Amino acid sequence: MDEQHLLNEIARDVQPLLNQGRVANYIPALAQVSPQQFGMALATVEGEVCGAGDWQTAFSVQSVAKTFSLALALAADGERLWQRVGREPSGNPFNSLVQLEYEHGIPRNPFINAGALVVVDRLQTLTGDAWLSVRDFLRAETGNDRIDFDQNVAASEAHYGHRNAALAHFMASYGNLENPVSEVLQQYFQQCALSMTCAELAQAGLFLARHGIRADGSRLLSRSDAKRINAVMLTCGTYDAAGEFAYRVGLPGKSGVGGGILAIVPGRYSLCVWSPGLDSHGNSVAGVAALDLFTTRTGLSVF
Amino acid sequence: MDEQHLLNEIARDVQPLLNQGRVANYIPALAQVSPQQFGMALATVEGEVCGAGDWQTAFSVQSVAKTFSLALALAADGERLWQRVGREPSGNPFNSLVQLEYEHGIPRNPFINAGALVVVDRLQTLTGDAWLSVRDFLRAETGNDRIDFDQNVAASEAHYGHRNAALAHFMASYGNLENPVSEVLQQYFQQCALSMTCAELAQAGLFLARHGIRADGSRLLSRSDAKRINAVMLTCGTYDAAGEFAYRVGLPGKSGVGGGILAIVPGRYSLCVWSPGLDSHGNSVAGVAALDLFTTRTGLSVF
Amino acid sequence: MDEQHLLNEIARDVQPLLNQGRVANYIPALAQVSPQQFGMALATVEGEVCGAGDWQTAFSVQSVAKTFSLALALAADGERLWQRVGREPSGNPFNSLVQLEYEHGIPRNPFINAGALVVVDRLQTLTGDAWLSVRDFLRAETGNDRIDFDQNVAASEAHYGHRNAALAHFMASYGNLENPVSEVLQQYFQQCALSMTCAELAQAGLFLARHGIRADGSRLLSRSDAKRINAVMLTCGTYDAAGEFAYRVGLPGKSGVGGGILAIVPGRYSLCVWSPGLDSHGNSVAGVAALDLFTTRTGLSVF
Amino acid sequence: MDEQHLLNEIARDVQPLLNQGRVANYIPALAQVSPQQFGMALATVEGEVCGAGDWQTAFSVQSVAKTFSLALALAADGERLWQRVGREPSGNPFNSLVQLEYEHGIPRNPFINAGALVVVDRLQTLTGDAWLSVRDFLRAETGNDRIDFDQNVAASEAHYGHRNAALAHFMASYGNLENPVSEVLQQYFQQCALSMTCAELAQAGLFLARHGIRADGSRLLSRSDAKRINAVMLTCGTYDAAGEFAYRVGLPGKSGVGGGILAIVPGRYSLCVWSPGLDSHGNSVAGVAALDLFTTRTGLSVF
Repeated sequence: MDEQHLLNEIARDVQPLLNQGRVANYIPALAQVSPQQFGMALATVEGEVCGAGDWQTAFSVQSVAKTFSLALALAADGERLWQRVGREPSGNPFNSLVQLEYEHGIPRNPFINAGALVVVDRLQTLTGDAWLSVRDFLRAETGNDRIDFDQNVAASEAHYGHRNAALAHFMASYGNLENPVSEVLQQYFQQCALSMTCAELAQAGLFLARHGIRADGSRLLSRSDAKRINAVMLTCGTYDAAGEFAYRVGLPGKSGVGGGILAIVPGRYSLCVWSPGLDSHGNSVAGVAALDLFTTRTGLSVF
Repeated sequence: MDEQHLLNEIARDVQPLLNQGRVANYIPALAQVSPQQFGMALATVEGEVCGAGDWQTAFSVQSVAKTFSLALALAADGERLWQRVGREPSGNPFNSLVQLEYEHGIPRNPFINAGALVVVDRLQTLTGDAWLSVRDFLRAETGNDRIDFDQNVAASEAHYGHRNAALAHFMASYGNLENPVSEVLQQYFQQCALSMTCAELAQAGLFLARHGIRADGSRLLSRSDAKRINAVMLTCGTYDAAGEFAYRVGLPGKSGVGGGILAIVPGRYSLCVWSPGLDSHGNSVAGVAALDLFTTRTGLSVF
Repeated sequence: MDEQHLLNEIARDVQPLLNQGRVANYIPALAQVSPQQFGMALATVEGEVCGAGDWQTAFSVQSVAKTFSLALALAADGERLWQRVGREPSGNPFNSLVQLEYEHGIPRNPFINAGALVVVDRLQTLTGDAWLSVRDFLRAETGNDRIDFDQNVAASEAHYGHRNAALAHFMASYGNLENPVSEVLQQYFQQCALSMTCAELAQAGLFLARHGIRADGSRLLSRSDAKRINAVMLTCGTYDAAGEFAYRVGLPGKSGVGGGILAIVPGRYSLCVWSPGLDSHGNSVAGVAALDLFTTRTGLSVF
Repeated sequence: MDEQHLLNEIARDVQPLLNQGRVANYIPALAQVSPQQFGMALATVEGEVCGAGDWQTAFSVQSVAKTFSLALALAADGERLWQRVGREPSGNPFNSLVQLEYEHGIPRNPFINAGALVVVDRLQTLTGDAWLSVRDFLRAETGNDRIDFDQNVAASEAHYGHRNAALAHFMASYGNLENPVSEVLQQYFQQCALSMTCAELAQAGLFLARHGIRADGSRLLSRSDAKRINAVMLTCGTYDAAGEFAYRVGLPGKSGVGGGILAIVPGRYSLCVWSPGLDSHGNSVAGVAALDLFTTRTGLSVF
């Protein structure tokens, strides 16, 4: 398969969609991004990377980062992690408090905001610094030592972060946070504010396509655990549209409100698409369409 | 791979689990089934079938039948079907009314009871007889012309079917049923009361492993639509434990409270396991464990 | 106080409101009623009745009838009734199923539809004929032997009654109905379809103003129990607007989607207002305004 | 009526209930209170005060204080207040977040915690210091210039106040707080930590029995607004047991988890009972029973 050619075609075919969708506006730092951008990168399990469009433009990673903190926490904690966070789809928006109350402070899965806060909290306890663990992992997988969070975005997240503060305090009221609320929030906001390119995210996701093996050949996760993260991505990775994403795309994927989506073709590829215009569920309109075209044209959905 | 040997091993290894779980007791006809039974059948895309344990014992198909009515309705109706039923995981038990109210009578997916009633209603409109369509499809795929519903079970379903009647009337109040409530319920109860063996169900599910091709070589569904049903099975097929099932087993699967589970290895196998003892979510304890062993030992999860 | 003069004034002052509100349209038989009607009747504990506007025009009693079946069931059953229905405000629309599911088939109070169905079911068991009990009580209190249900309305209720059928089947699934669903629904629809005038309803409600004493001087309820029904009316009698009604009017009241409201001034009066235009909660716009004027001008709110 | 005699009798009759109920344990400062205490005070509209039991022992006022901040905010703000908080019963526990999410950050009523936070926020804006406004009002009505909050309790509230912090941040995320979250919480915790006796609270509540007139004869609220606060107390004042309280007691009342309940007999009395053992809804077991005895023996329920 000529991956470069395919990516070029897809980048061309999604152009009409770039006016659709709405750029995330819950923080000013994101609202200013131009919606007319689209990038797509593909990394093979051998480590080759190609891309099309704005694939080397850095954007705000947002919830895509939840994939990496989850992997690191699972690697360090094993099955114990699942005592503090579930792995069921939520059937509710990503920042809802309703289910959290019915389930007594145990988030449904690690990809809704409440669950990601628990993962960061756990990683903080296990490693002493959740943020540095994630950052160092990403630098190692990509070979880019300048990967960092955007100070402006992180400050904006903190300033407008009442909903996440509510989630964190709510879980603390149930005894489901180990570290101080303000500390967990800070770590979480920094992780969300990561600035990376499609190329870098595709590289960083390769350990999931390789069933647990990092860029340096070492094993982060057992084959089973790596597959299990893929399963969580497929069932829970795109907010309250996971069923739709599985139906259309058929790959494990994790989206962010910055417009990025990381998707895995197990055993073959790690893909990252980015376009800032979002649908009503918070997923990139052109990004989902690009992945839909990819699996339709290659037949590479997992199903 | 020596499938027969593997199935024998699994049937042996799950024996300690046969005392766990509780047999469904919401209708008397099911409550009398002995929990000490376990069967597993595997059908290859070439049509070979093997099995272990009670793989040739007929049991009550229950919600596994939803897979077939969905496939037939999708084949007849195409994308229009999704205007009347969603395809998102529900995050609630299979017979809950809560989400149905918040979403104005549109069920979250075709595998919760409300969604299956809508599918039966639509199939009834499209074919004139939903039940006969399902029955005739199953007879054709298995070559067994005696496949039918169990009169005793169907009568029991109707007698104790207040929850399903509530769901049907509730959807009718939103205008989301085309046929009379009593007619839709009768067709639905007959479908639930189907009596089939693991061997037969594995054969009947092969069109999903073959990406849409029936036993006679004709195409029921496009390659994409067949894959999409697999996606719906994976995200919604095991009630409020779909995330757990994806995490442990990693295959598209559809369970029933009779203790059966149909699972698909796309491009290779259709599997059916059966054991009557259920976990708190309504899935067979030994059945899920057997499929977990299968994918662990073969590495054949889709992830 | 010159009650007749006051009622005349109020009937005049609410005229501008008669174009506001929407006539109930969930059944055709109600949708045809002209919204330009307003009636108000006042009955004193001594038995005097006066009125203004269309106070002698019969209209569809609808949920106001729930007051009478509750009183009769409480008289016959005593405190046992409260094992099957609560007495807390619901915080949800009158025909919602959500809370019913969270509370396992026990309705929050006897004035939401689910609770009224339980009351009818209980009255049916206790008296052998719930409908005849209510009808005969109303005939006795008003001296009008022709009080009956409107056949057209009752048929319409049954035809469009999917929501109530859903509620009844749902409670039956929890074992909270003693009689067949179809029988309970029929009795309930007849009660809703009662056709009475403001004058008659005001007379029929006098036993609540008289703290339990009927028109013939006999006691239906103990002083305490009569007061308790007033309490339930005040906290639960006007659907999801009970707080608003208490705040503005400050009297025990029970409304119906026919546009009628029965209100009690304990120890003094029974009032009935009627005007078909409803607000978004299902309460008569001009009716609530008329009662608001009444308590503002007389100072007779219970607070 | 010999009020002193009646209070003595009631204090004697509730003794067997003092072992029932559980002392609030969500903050250590409250958990240490002995459950064997009971006090009851009655203040007449003429200003006479009598009491029985521990009626002159100070206790933690907790949510009873919400009555006073509501009255002061309504006096200063008028109807505008109701744009930011509703006045409907909630049908949920007092610190639930569920309804707050469904209603987009507008609390159902001023007596659930979320609503009380909005009231404190508004009072803060209107007066420059919500806490001092409440404190000075209470000092003026009781003539006791040493009324203050308990530093130990306030610190404990703040330390264990994650649920309230969640509520405040959640409302801030909807734009329904005007002042900084930390400031509103501090003011709220100080108000909750007020330490007062039954005698003082009965005196402080007299303005509601007097339909708006303060101890010095000046008018705080119009007659209508005072009655309206009574209406809100009756429909919303005892958490998710307001219907039960109206049914048993039949008076406007506001309870606190310190075990106090303020109840109003409009035009006649302001009552305060206190006993630390709580029922499952957070209301004092002996306190509710004492008020039940009071209205049963005097016939003074509002119904």
